[in-house]
Amino acid sequence: MKRIVVEKKILEKNDDIANQIRKTLDSNHIFGLNVMSSPGAGKTTLIERMVEIFKSKYKIAAIDGDLDTQRDAQRIAALGIETVQINTSGACHLDSSMVYKALNDITLDLDLLIIENVGNLVCPASFYLGTHKNVVLISTPEGDDKVKKYPTMFNVADVVLINKTDIAQFVKFDVEKVENEIKELNPHALIYKISALKNDGLEPFLSWVESNIVSVKNQ
Amino acid sequence: MKRIVVEKKILEKNDDIANQIRKTLDSNHIFGLNVMSSPGAGKTTLIERMVEIFKSKYKIAAIDGDLDTQRDAQRIAALGIETVQINTSGACHLDSSMVYKALNDITLDLDLLIIENVGNLVCPASFYLGTHKNVVLISTPEGDDKVKKYPTMFNVADVVLINKTDIAQFVKFDVEKVENEIKELNPHALIYKISALKNDGLEPFLSWVESNIVSVKNQ
Repeated sequence: MKRIVVEKKILEKNDDIANQIRKTLDSNHIFGLNVMSSPGAGKTTLIERMVEIFKSKYKIAAIDGDLDTQRDAQRIAALGIETVQINTSGACHLDSSMVYKALNDITLDLDLLIIENVGNLVCPASFYLGTHKNVVLISTPEGDDKVKKYPTMFNVADVVLINKTDIAQFVKFDVEKVENEIKELNPHALIYKISALKNDGLEPFLSWVESNIVSVKNQ
Repeated sequence: MKRIVVEKKILEKNDDIANQIRKTLDSNHIFGLNVMSSPGAGKTTLIERMVEIFKSKYKIAAIDGDLDTQRDAQRIAALGIETVQINTSGACHLDSSMVYKALNDITLDLDLLIIENVGNLVCPASFYLGTHKNVVLISTPEGDDKVKKYPTMFNVADVVLINKTDIAQFVKFDVEKVENEIKELNPHALIYKISALKNDGLEPFLSWVESNIVSVKNQ
């Protein structure tokens, strides 16, 4: 029982700070997007595509979470947007206090703040970061049995992107089964099939992002 | 500081129970193997191959960790060995108390106990389960940048299996780079390139497992 109380306190404290982040985003009319998945499911490549498409039209910054190295942040910063790397020193998820500190290093004259979480299909789902929406990627080589095995993550998704459809033919992946399991678990989640690497099928997702940017801008 | 103290206490308690598990394994001459990776990197398929090869020669049982569902345990139990599913109810790793309880449901007249951890490249690395060795899988579609981004996991590996080499040609994966980064981080880890699905390249790993089974048997 003790451990549950500790976890509850940690999560409550996390939510308090996340609510402050949300107020900051709202008062500055910045759409906040939290991107989550297993390691290597394609978060950074997806963010690269988003930045390439939107950077001429919207002001974007990224916060990049990782245990160690600057590898992902360097890829995103190379596209010319403000990027802050958070190294979690072994921690398995971003929490709101890390994001709150990172926000101090970012100019808040923005339309879109993208947060790339630590590659982990479990823990990041439990830590609200004050963002408006959650995007969860599942990549075809991970297998078509993952949705019900990792229900916490798919439950918090506003959008699920089924990524790496370009190599689906080389791995065992029943798209329909995955779509049905997402719908059963979380009927409100939008589902799009994409290949971020090949820049394929991204339009409906990018339209969804843009409608959110505009909506928060006009709030 | 408070949180660090809590984590230290949790890990110390975990180690105490893990040491009891290790005593049980040693006194029964059972080789304990902890299998870890990201979701979908091929843990269950690897275990299927091990069981197929060894079940006529050695007595094997498996403990299978997952947030939810019995999917992996059902696949392993279908091969005719004793299998216990641990559902962690959202927790991101197996801890030693879960394994200790599961051991009560297993006949200890065994040569090999395989533990399949929760699919997560971060948290399971911090929780010693009393097993003799750790096997970590990294699959080619996850990308060749993962070793240094997830150093805790690769640091605790006795063996790293580079899996899904059969689809390496369809994804960006520099095998030599990954091998060099593993050697730099953890020079003691053995590295084998395999395709568990295609049953390719497994012999050196299976020999290593067998030598460990024999060694613990003769202790």
